[in-house]
Amino acid sequence: MRFTKMHGAGNDYVYVNCFAEKLPEPAPELAIKVSDRRFGVGGDGLILIEPSDVADARMRMFNADGSEAEMCGNGIRCVAKFVHDHGICQRDSLRIETGNGVLELKLQINGEKAELITVDMGIPKLLPAEIPTTLSDKPLVNFPVEFGGMELRVTTVSMGNPHCVVFVPEATDALVLGLGPQIESDPRFPKRTNVEFVEIVSRTELKQRTWERGSGETWACGTGASAVCVAAVLTGQAEREVLIHLTGGDLRLRWDEATEHVFMTGGAVEVFQGVWPT
Amino acid sequence: MRFTKMHGAGNDYVYVNCFAEKLPEPAPELAIKVSDRRFGVGGDGLILIEPSDVADARMRMFNADGSEAEMCGNGIRCVAKFVHDHGICQRDSLRIETGNGVLELKLQINGEKAELITVDMGIPKLLPAEIPTTLSDKPLVNFPVEFGGMELRVTTVSMGNPHCVVFVPEATDALVLGLGPQIESDPRFPKRTNVEFVEIVSRTELKQRTWERGSGETWACGTGASAVCVAAVLTGQAEREVLIHLTGGDLRLRWDEATEHVFMTGGAVEVFQGVWPT
Repeated sequence: MRFTKMHGAGNDYVYVNCFAEKLPEPAPELAIKVSDRRFGVGGDGLILIEPSDVADARMRMFNADGSEAEMCGNGIRCVAKFVHDHGICQRDSLRIETGNGVLELKLQINGEKAELITVDMGIPKLLPAEIPTTLSDKPLVNFPVEFGGMELRVTTVSMGNPHCVVFVPEATDALVLGLGPQIESDPRFPKRTNVEFVEIVSRTELKQRTWERGSGETWACGTGASAVCVAAVLTGQAEREVLIHLTGGDLRLRWDEATEHVFMTGGAVEVFQGVWPT
Repeated sequence: MRFTKMHGAGNDYVYVNCFAEKLPEPAPELAIKVSDRRFGVGGDGLILIEPSDVADARMRMFNADGSEAEMCGNGIRCVAKFVHDHGICQRDSLRIETGNGVLELKLQINGEKAELITVDMGIPKLLPAEIPTTLSDKPLVNFPVEFGGMELRVTTVSMGNPHCVVFVPEATDALVLGLGPQIESDPRFPKRTNVEFVEIVSRTELKQRTWERGSGETWACGTGASAVCVAAVLTGQAEREVLIHLTGGDLRLRWDEATEHVFMTGGAVEVFQGVWPT
């Protein structure tokens, strides 16, 4: 089975072109094997690029533990680049079917390759019941909360999954690795939460470290960067278009005033191609 | 550039057949790039399989930081398997040139593939000046030493590199991650030392966790397993042939009475083949 290793902002997956390839075994088992960084190919999971009845292609993603996930903002950029660069569909505007519905993507082409890809991440939800959180009954914007004996000001945003954004002077290990897991599992977030620790560099530039629900610190999180952009605007600290430096790379986020949709733009990199023995 | 990802007891490298391939850039730079587990192929380093004037093939190895190393007991088994299985030299006895001289290997062939490979790891050195250590002026066998306020009994062995073997009832995180780095950097080991924490299962079966000098805890260490076999015999706790369970897999060690050489036998696995873009 041929595969391609790709990453978006350091979020790396093993991609299989199911227009041409047949999986040697069920996807959950295969995902566990190929994701292993010593005994397999290594990656955050397995993403299948399949034919779709309603879009240009369908993306199915499996985490490293074999569980299926709906969508990944960094993964879908790689899917779009693959679909374009490998000739499955060579338009600069693509529709990809995901577990969260069909998403629209715009590709910036350099020569014959997609370089930057923009994803419509949808409309953020702000009501506490939508996050969900029991911290208040109104949207939380710089809302004071005590975690582990420390008062933080949090802004909560749902991008289909819960995010708790905390602006800090410095996103230290003590905060990310110490408080991250405490906030994730705080009972006032009934479905747990992702946590973003964010430094404001300027009104158009932010720096983010991410504590991901169920995964610990990760190098990049597309829904997290979207939530951070929204939170920075809501707290009056940034313009609607910002550059965010994540641990694994940069993403450009824009919260469109007219449509309220968040648009994420970033690169996608093909690292190498390989053959998995079957 | 074509490459092959292989592992021996979980010690994984990117292998390049330099009989057929040309490196796109100098090996140290390439090693840093391909070893990265997110932005590259991922591995503990890069191993080049080259023609040799004095043996069947030559092995050159570069760590993930680009530094060149002399030899790796898990790596050389993979080199032997590659040389055999890919038809470079299809004998069941091979001579491989390394930075530590030419080593002899025996291959057990199953069908057309090498399955288990035995490496002659040479004669252990036991004199304190050869380790080196200043803890005593005689060979240290179950020698009482205090580290971090705890009295341990240590056995020191050089297999070309220094090893401090500690037999314990249970190789806990507190010991490996807590005391490992303290022993490694203790001034009484002037060139620092590798540290092995070993549980005796029976007179022919041991369990080992390894704290590697400069790398922290690793999944497997061939010279470490050799030192553990020697130390278990010297302390009267095991036969001369033992099965050692390491974190990444099993190795069989034999300290030959007649020649005093240590022989290590273990598997080597080809994980996948790939093409690195140049």
